[in-house]
Amino acid sequence: MIRFECDYSEGAHPKIIRILSETNFEQTSGYGTDEYCEKARRLIKEICGAPGAHVHFLVGGTQANRTVISSILRPHQGVLSACTGHINIHETGAIEAAGHKVLPLPSPDGKITAEQIENAYQEHWSDETHEHMVQPGMVYISNPTENGTIYTKSELSSLSEVCKKYELPLYMDGARLGYGLVADNNDLTLEDIARLCDVFYIGGTKVGALFGEAVVIVNPALQKDFRYFIKQNGGMLAKGRILGLQFLALMEDNLYLDISRHAVRLAMKLKAALSDKGYGFLYESCTNQQFPIMPDAHLDALSGKYAYSIWEKTDDLHTAVRFCTSWATREEAVVKLISDIKGL
Amino acid sequence: MIRFECDYSEGAHPKIIRILSETNFEQTSGYGTDEYCEKARRLIKEICGAPGAHVHFLVGGTQANRTVISSILRPHQGVLSACTGHINIHETGAIEAAGHKVLPLPSPDGKITAEQIENAYQEHWSDETHEHMVQPGMVYISNPTENGTIYTKSELSSLSEVCKKYELPLYMDGARLGYGLVADNNDLTLEDIARLCDVFYIGGTKVGALFGEAVVIVNPALQKDFRYFIKQNGGMLAKGRILGLQFLALMEDNLYLDISRHAVRLAMKLKAALSDKGYGFLYESCTNQQFPIMPDAHLDALSGKYAYSIWEKTDDLHTAVRFCTSWATREEAVVKLISDIKGL
Amino acid sequence: MIRFECDYSEGAHPKIIRILSETNFEQTSGYGTDEYCEKARRLIKEICGAPGAHVHFLVGGTQANRTVISSILRPHQGVLSACTGHINIHETGAIEAAGHKVLPLPSPDGKITAEQIENAYQEHWSDETHEHMVQPGMVYISNPTENGTIYTKSELSSLSEVCKKYELPLYMDGARLGYGLVADNNDLTLEDIARLCDVFYIGGTKVGALFGEAVVIVNPALQKDFRYFIKQNGGMLAKGRILGLQFLALMEDNLYLDISRHAVRLAMKLKAALSDKGYGFLYESCTNQQFPIMPDAHLDALSGKYAYSIWEKTDDLHTAVRFCTSWATREEAVVKLISDIKGL
Amino acid sequence: MIRFECDYSEGAHPKIIRILSETNFEQTSGYGTDEYCEKARRLIKEICGAPGAHVHFLVGGTQANRTVISSILRPHQGVLSACTGHINIHETGAIEAAGHKVLPLPSPDGKITAEQIENAYQEHWSDETHEHMVQPGMVYISNPTENGTIYTKSELSSLSEVCKKYELPLYMDGARLGYGLVADNNDLTLEDIARLCDVFYIGGTKVGALFGEAVVIVNPALQKDFRYFIKQNGGMLAKGRILGLQFLALMEDNLYLDISRHAVRLAMKLKAALSDKGYGFLYESCTNQQFPIMPDAHLDALSGKYAYSIWEKTDDLHTAVRFCTSWATREEAVVKLISDIKGL
Repeated sequence: MIRFECDYSEGAHPKIIRILSETNFEQTSGYGTDEYCEKARRLIKEICGAPGAHVHFLVGGTQANRTVISSILRPHQGVLSACTGHINIHETGAIEAAGHKVLPLPSPDGKITAEQIENAYQEHWSDETHEHMVQPGMVYISNPTENGTIYTKSELSSLSEVCKKYELPLYMDGARLGYGLVADNNDLTLEDIARLCDVFYIGGTKVGALFGEAVVIVNPALQKDFRYFIKQNGGMLAKGRILGLQFLALMEDNLYLDISRHAVRLAMKLKAALSDKGYGFLYESCTNQQFPIMPDAHLDALSGKYAYSIWEKTDDLHTAVRFCTSWATREEAVVKLISDIKGL
Repeated sequence: MIRFECDYSEGAHPKIIRILSETNFEQTSGYGTDEYCEKARRLIKEICGAPGAHVHFLVGGTQANRTVISSILRPHQGVLSACTGHINIHETGAIEAAGHKVLPLPSPDGKITAEQIENAYQEHWSDETHEHMVQPGMVYISNPTENGTIYTKSELSSLSEVCKKYELPLYMDGARLGYGLVADNNDLTLEDIARLCDVFYIGGTKVGALFGEAVVIVNPALQKDFRYFIKQNGGMLAKGRILGLQFLALMEDNLYLDISRHAVRLAMKLKAALSDKGYGFLYESCTNQQFPIMPDAHLDALSGKYAYSIWEKTDDLHTAVRFCTSWATREEAVVKLISDIKGL
Repeated sequence: MIRFECDYSEGAHPKIIRILSETNFEQTSGYGTDEYCEKARRLIKEICGAPGAHVHFLVGGTQANRTVISSILRPHQGVLSACTGHINIHETGAIEAAGHKVLPLPSPDGKITAEQIENAYQEHWSDETHEHMVQPGMVYISNPTENGTIYTKSELSSLSEVCKKYELPLYMDGARLGYGLVADNNDLTLEDIARLCDVFYIGGTKVGALFGEAVVIVNPALQKDFRYFIKQNGGMLAKGRILGLQFLALMEDNLYLDISRHAVRLAMKLKAALSDKGYGFLYESCTNQQFPIMPDAHLDALSGKYAYSIWEKTDDLHTAVRFCTSWATREEAVVKLISDIKGL
Repeated sequence: MIRFECDYSEGAHPKIIRILSETNFEQTSGYGTDEYCEKARRLIKEICGAPGAHVHFLVGGTQANRTVISSILRPHQGVLSACTGHINIHETGAIEAAGHKVLPLPSPDGKITAEQIENAYQEHWSDETHEHMVQPGMVYISNPTENGTIYTKSELSSLSEVCKKYELPLYMDGARLGYGLVADNNDLTLEDIARLCDVFYIGGTKVGALFGEAVVIVNPALQKDFRYFIKQNGGMLAKGRILGLQFLALMEDNLYLDISRHAVRLAMKLKAALSDKGYGFLYESCTNQQFPIMPDAHLDALSGKYAYSIWEKTDDLHTAVRFCTSWATREEAVVKLISDIKGL
């Protein structure tokens, strides 16, 4: 069985295993106060061109989202998000458990627009009974989105502008950030993101790390006391250096982008083959996730050899599925899959 | 600088690094549904003599405590705990953030008694206005406690009995469980604990793992839907096998107890030396944490070469401090420390 | 200015003022433990044909919803509701503040169907990753709905059946229950509601009381410890008898239904006039709230003399508005409004 | 049976019943936006010498405490309080349910000192692991305390000073504020309180109203969006004017202080008699609550005719009890009680 159903089927990039092994018996202080974490933080700030940012290493994405969002909102505020946003759908209500409503905005492709933010804000404040409703308090986006799409610099700039205008912190969930940054039609850099967002995280779990996400808090007003929030949300790793070491390995020498490029190249190869075969796509994705709509008979034929995710039934005979590549995907696995698809 | 200030200064037992390395490129399903997690779960249930238990792997202690406690209590209930309990003092209000009061009981040594539970329960229910007060809903103990002390089988049996009588689930925080199980005056086994507690966790972070705690839910009434709680609390690791592999490594061939024994042997050696030197102790600990009360001048003399934790000032000239050993402590480090102490 | 914008513009039915005045200097025990509350509880149980029910008096609707819902759900569960439900829109996120997601179902008229519940349930449980999503834990409906519509006995029976099948407690928000029970096309009685719902509340605030809602918990499994929840949510009135006295006054001699009938009769009179004038309606309401779509010019002409609520712009020249009658509406006020509408 | 067990046994001052009756059929806008509320707010600001304050009317004390405290604290912060504070003991964990730990300070008499705040603050911030602990975020006091004691101007000034120094908002729970303001040894005025506290509330429920507390937010930094919090916490009364009217009645012509004076005069009369009889007191109270320690035999003799509250057993033969007077207590009831006590 060759797995394409997600981008976390393997362990970590070998460099990470090596660095963990090499430093294993060193003694360091705990909870992210060690030198490795400090170096990784410095490196990330440098790459992002954000010397004043605070960088924190958290264990996973749901934890990062919950910790960041609950650190920003006051109790009567909610977070604007695409209805397809991970926080709205796939985090078992972690945001609500922290007391906040996710305010969903319609989205055909996983993205939201500056205009939607503008309208939601105006709609709230123009209502005479706004005190009876949840106040929009910040904006959540994911990039790439859960559907594999990405924001252009122009789109993100517009979002940033409206957010600044209304004092709504803009937060980007970058669980798959690497796969977005190297996409063919991407024109965003980490520096752009650090300039346009108030907070974002650089995803490690799905891009080469065993686990871990690097939360970058650019807006000084949101930096205060963040370590308390990490601890309260169960995210302060005793052996914090394990996270620092991993991000050090990923961020040095462009490894993060290099391994992302590998994944996206293979995804594009697969996409071309799927397209050549005549399949349509549920979303037009330029990143490591592809969502072809395939005949159920074809899917049955593949299912003994390949794992993929069921996304949704599109009609009685077809199903949209997800194939993911990752930093760890072997070229020959994709070649084999393509060959089998051609033969269907 | 040789570090004794905590038991999480190093990485993981070499076997864990090796197993992570060896399995690194295998593909497995995510979120703890893989075969390694399954094997580790089976092994733990077998060792605990609890075939019907549910075993879940979580990332850290605060997360485990918060997830377990909030899965058990209803909103109007609180958790009885020693006032010194980790949940009451050192988790940044994680339990309160989940909506529940920690109901503190006085404790000179970190332990609580069946009689205290009995009294707290009676006091609540005999009060006419009990509906105006937080209802005791469960009992939290740590073993070893934060002060290095441990429960005897007789004490735990009494606690268990009163908890069953009043339908108060009994939960044991075993962050340092290994170091308790191998203590000289310990008479508890994992089987006893599984029989006497409703839920407990076997601590990995401080006993040989990179990170991770194995939550064992023995009481079937508390098992339902627990994976939702893990996810909501940000504890469901995408690459869940990393936790399963670590516990597999620790639980096979008694490694967990063997490395615990190493730590406690060194702690006892240090304790004898401290005692010989004439120091008193803040708590009478038989496990890997030792709390000598030392002249400030002596501490100053050591502080260039050794790291220890300040616990509390006991008078103008003395301070209680904490020295920890762990599975990773080198014998020669302890020998050197003892020699330096003798020379003070 | 004559007010039609809501159904809480006046004080209380004179009988309530009188009974509060007459009993003012009696001494009774606090927190709802007095004889008046007890009598009111008995009377409500009798009228509902639910001798085993528990009845509690709360101050207001948001409080009742929050207290009931948070007493029922476990932390990982959410409440299914029409997207137009009061809890989803107009309670400032009170349910989310208690930790729970409102799971919205589309609704053109404020109602939801048994089929929607069935589908939502199936959709959740058939998803392989259901543990990553909020689990449906109960169902919230309002009757009459926020749009003035009501459930038929057949519809409520179907809802009740699917809820029982899947062990989803069914909760009815009866803020305007009286106005539904006396509607022309209503075929539900309080006895039916008590038989088909697990919990519901009989609204007092909008139907003759100064304030207050009577929560009726029919399902014994949901009755335990409810007074703790009331206190924790700030709803336990020290002088609880004020609530008991009001419900005693309302429930004796059919006063509740008689004054509801008055309101609905006047609403129907107004509805006929609006219809005669040729206006359409945003919702087809048979209760005390009417939602005509009127030319903005007509609304402007009325706005100096009458208060109404703006509901939504339907096109450039028309707006849907809300006119409410209530137990306190004077017949001559409606006559005058109708006359002025005719003259537009 | 004559009731002395609490200060909420009767309804409201007759002026309140009259004003509710007289205005009953007036139509006003809802949710506290009416003219009566506005007048009451203006009057309170005038009396408090705080023209910039925001005044909100809430239903009860627990609700006021929960709403105020959760509006001020960030998630990682707790509230410093006497261990005997109402929020720590008698609100069913309402503060914890809102996510915050009550940080208890020892108190023999219900009061806390500036020095205790200073120490708690220093202790937190000097601890290296402070991020693992709940951060003190504000200070809660009650005046009079739950034990009947009151703060002097000097004590309150010191508290205020240390709170300002450390940016800890100071909040006074004034459930029985009237009974404190008229005590013999009181030297605080409402103006002093408004100057020295950031937020406080003037209790109505126990001092002449049917129910209701007037929250006064003096510190402009804490005023923002407070109405959202009221709504979210279930405290926004639809017919808000009922609260405004009551506070208007109480605050006009010194009624609030006059009826408080009546209660305290009777309490002092009773206190003298208890003292003459030779009973000791659990607390030295100068307000409407008295806590004599009486022989159980004497209590038994009184219990058929008088209701009082059991406070605590002080030894095998004696019990501390509470007798309350209130604005509604009849002089002859106290005379009769005194006569019966003399005859014991």
